[in-house]
Order: sequence, then structure tokens, then C-alpha cells
Amino acid sequence: MKTFNVTILGCGSALPTTRHIGASQVVNIHDKLFMVDCSEGTQIQFRKNKLTFSRLNHVFLSHLHGDHCFGLMGLLSTLALYGRTSDIHVWGPTDTERIFRPQIDYFCAKSPFNIIIHEVDTSQYSLLHEDRTVEIYSLPLKHRIECCGYLFKEKPGLPHIRRDMLDAYNIPISQINNIKAGADYTTEDGEIIPNEKLTTPADPARMYAYCSDTAYLPSLAHYLQGIDLLYHEATFAENNKARAAETFHSTAKQAATIAKDSHAKRLCIGHFSSRYKDEGILLEEARTIFPDTILANENLTITV
Amino acid sequence: MKTFNVTILGCGSALPTTRHIGASQVVNIHDKLFMVDCSEGTQIQFRKNKLTFSRLNHVFLSHLHGDHCFGLMGLLSTLALYGRTSDIHVWGPTDTERIFRPQIDYFCAKSPFNIIIHEVDTSQYSLLHEDRTVEIYSLPLKHRIECCGYLFKEKPGLPHIRRDMLDAYNIPISQINNIKAGADYTTEDGEIIPNEKLTTPADPARMYAYCSDTAYLPSLAHYLQGIDLLYHEATFAENNKARAAETFHSTAKQAATIAKDSHAKRLCIGHFSSRYKDEGILLEEARTIFPDTILANENLTITV
Repeated sequence: MKTFNVTILGCGSALPTTRHIGASQVVNIHDKLFMVDCSEGTQIQFRKNKLTFSRLNHVFLSHLHGDHCFGLMGLLSTLALYGRTSDIHVWGPTDTERIFRPQIDYFCAKSPFNIIIHEVDTSQYSLLHEDRTVEIYSLPLKHRIECCGYLFKEKPGLPHIRRDMLDAYNIPISQINNIKAGADYTTEDGEIIPNEKLTTPADPARMYAYCSDTAYLPSLAHYLQGIDLLYHEATFAENNKARAAETFHSTAKQAATIAKDSHAKRLCIGHFSSRYKDEGILLEEARTIFPDTILANENLTITV
Repeated sequence: MKTFNVTILGCGSALPTTRHIGASQVVNIHDKLFMVDCSEGTQIQFRKNKLTFSRLNHVFLSHLHGDHCFGLMGLLSTLALYGRTSDIHVWGPTDTERIFRPQIDYFCAKSPFNIIIHEVDTSQYSLLHEDRTVEIYSLPLKHRIECCGYLFKEKPGLPHIRRDMLDAYNIPISQINNIKAGADYTTEDGEIIPNEKLTTPADPARMYAYCSDTAYLPSLAHYLQGIDLLYHEATFAENNKARAAETFHSTAKQAATIAKDSHAKRLCIGHFSSRYKDEGILLEEARTIFPDTILANENLTITV
């Protein structure tokens, strides 16, 4: 199967600690990198994880709280210092242009590439970007300010050719694309080999979603049905449920409920409050509702 | 002697690496903290070094290149999250207000303290701030954009009272301030004890200067005569002297020459180009001219 994984660069919340920096992660889909959120320290984490700047063309910001975007200027400056020439796209809510453009104009004045900001309607589920391999959608979230998640849908691939059948019927290379597209094969003797015999089904298309920051939002599950991996914030444990509601964050159990209602395959929780010196309690609570839960951590890569 | 030290939070240059972040340091003078430069990651380094946010009231920016100021927004936001109420002063060149105020207004809108920006005339040596213990001056530097260093001059303290004399002459506590201010003491028997006998001289007032970023600038030595500790950038080794001149940076030997011409007691070199995996060559070259040189490093604290 082609690469589809997520590397957590940071999974802390408002106050960075010596254990966790703010929110940032990189989604690798078929070796194209998509960054989601960009907290202070992201570019250093990016390098620590030996990711390749030239493969990164899109940065998606969930919202304009500092722990999700204060690394953006550093990242953009560094891209320029690395001699990048291809444009980079920054996606974020209303005000992303107004808040970042003056600093971009000042600090990246000599940048040999364009920094294109796309303001996202965070109240809508809508297709923002697609290429040959992926579609990326905004997911409306419920936070103190405009905020959205991002859904990454791998596009269905083509069936696999059975190498043993290629050999058995001596099928020329020139026919492979036709067969992948569904054609049968007619041998020199006029025998028709049906497509089903020549191929095995395409790998199932996979889905990943990033949902942070958000209050408990049951309607989210509607967009996430059957998702392979869900990253959902779990800022608080259950005994801070009131505090979670007040600050428009979720508890670990609420995150797990979204995963369960989405029939997700796996859940990764993150955006931990700095009050937890050990997030074991969050993991334990989430697993009572959704057993296939793991804890985010800096430098963790999860295959989707 | 009262505390006067410098903690290096970051001593890298334009490209942060896994070894060095951009420029930032904290000068502790009698337990008041002054930050000089504020690169991305500064607030995390600040906490790692167990420094106390409430003791920090001034941040001095040398110039507006990202590796000297991209941590400012994160630092200011964190101060607000910690419930700070006292104002904070940010000193920097022309444009500091224009470039940072929009983000301060947006991200620190609910901050319960004022963020006061003082724009510094970087072309002048002038007194910017003083309190009971210190005077802080701008030092004109020569860089690609407006840039200045900062000179910290401890104010002369008072003489020390000799405890053995207090006991011998049974001098009441009420007289101590007078004696420290230079008065003699007259005993009950009318004997006059001269001040010199009652006191030992005040500790010598100490000086520290931060000079980064700058091309080799011989005139600097004029302001730094007899300085206790000089921090001077040494971005390059001697074989990159042309590159240093071109980018308005210094070599290690040039930094050492400034220290020598200033009759400095010690030199700390920093702002290392990311090309050096080991800065030994810079140290070696500097020491051929000024033996009392040390290398900056993250989390190093140097007593002035």
C-alpha cells in the first residue's frame, strides 16, 4: 500500500511545556506532505523527523489561536532560506490574510515563491483541495473562535495486476493500463480472459481527520463514518468536563464517543492540557468507550 | 556579590537546527531579568532554564530578522496565560510597532497588562532604561538592516560594612545607612572612627554587552572598554571571511579582535552558522587573538 501516515510534531495545548509543544502535524499521502496547524517550534520538529521541506506545499490552520499558528512565520522564512521556488498554500479561517500578510510582506519580502493564503469558510463541510491522490475537506468545529478540522480522503486507486497472470498469458506491458482500467484481455488464440481473473481489487481508499480544537460536537460523526484514523482533541479528563464545556474543548470520553459514533477504526487523542504530567488518565477514560485509542506524542508516526 | 549572569537560550543563526535555535538570552541583574532577542522556541527554553516569567519586564530586540524575534508572540501570549498583570516593555528598531502591534492586538486582545513598544534609534549609543541597579544602552551595530546591541552597566553599589567593626564599637543598626553613605562613626565616648575603618570597598560595577548581528565594527571597542563579559557574534570561521563581509556578519577572529581592543575580561561567541556541526574551529580561531573566549551554548549560564 502507498504511504499514508501522520507524524505528530506537537500535541500540547495553549501553554507549551518541556514535554509538549503546541499543535502541529504532518500528513504524508503518497509522499506528498500536508501540514495541519503550525505551533511555535514546528519547523524544528519537522527537521527532527527528517521530513522534506520540498514535499510540503500546503499548510492548514484550524484556527488562529497562538498554539496552532505561531510557528508559521518561522516555517515560511526557513522555506525561503532553503531556496524554495514553488508556491506554498496556507489555508485558514477569516483573518488569516489580515493577520499574517503584513509579517509575510516584511519577513519574506525576498522570498522567490508566492505564499498564497486561502481563507476557509469554517462553518461548511466543503472540498478545499484535490489532486490525483487526495481530497481535503473542511470540517466545521465548535470552538471559542472560528475553527475547522480537516478531512483527508485518499482517492480510490486502480486494481492490482496479477503478475502470475501476466506471465501465464504472456500479456504485453502495453496492455496493463487497459486492464487496470477494467478491460478483459484477448490472447493471440482469441481466448478472452475476464478482467476479474487478471486483477486483484484496489487497496481500499483511506480517510484521516484532524479535529482540534472543539467542544463535544456529536454532528461531527456524520462526516467521519468508517474513518480509518481520527485525531480528536482531548484536552481534559472527565473530572474537568465543566471546564471543557466552558472553554469549548473536549474530554477524552467525548473524543472517544465521536470515534465510536463514527465507527472509526482507530482514535488518536491529543491537545493535552498542561496540567497532565502523564496522560494515562485520558487514555484510560477514552478506552472505556473506544478501546482502539492511542495517545498522541511528539515524533510519533501513525500509519493510517 | 549580587547576581549578574547571562543564560543563553539560543545561539544559532538564521536556520534553526536540532542543535541550536535562533538568538535569545536572559540577563539576570540582581534577580531582575532582561531578555535580549526572542527567537522561535524562546519561551520553552525560558521554562527549561527554570527562569521566572514574573521577573521579566523588558525584552530587547536587536533587529527584525526572524531568528531574533519570531518567539515574541508566543512569549507575550504565554505571559497573559500565566495571569500576569504588570506591563511589559519591548524595545526594538523602527518597524517593531508596525510589524508586531497587529498581532499583539489580535492574539493578546484580552491581555490584562500593557505591551509597551519602545522604538530604539539603532544608530545611537544612548541610555534606554535605568533603575536602581542597572543602566541599559543601545550600541550601534552594522548589519543588513537596522540593528543594535545592548550594553548592561551595573550601577556602583555601596561599600560593605565590616561586621567585626559593628561588634567592636557596638554600632547601632540605625547608623548603617549613614556609614554606607560615607559617614564616620562617633562612639558614646566621643571617639571618631573613620569611615575607611568601618567599611570595605563596594563591589566593582560590572558590564555586559550583547553584540549581534554585526559586521566587523572596530568602533564598537570604544563603548566596551574594560567590559567584564562581551557576547559577540561569530557566525563564520576565517575561511568564510568574504561571506561574513557580504552578509554583514563577523568571523570568530573579528569577534576576538573586538574583545581584545575593548580590553574585555571574557568573550563569549555565538550566532553560529548552521554549517558548523562542531564550533571548535571558531573557538580555536578566536583564542589565537583573545584566549579568554568561550563558546555559547543553549542553557549555558555565565556569571558576569
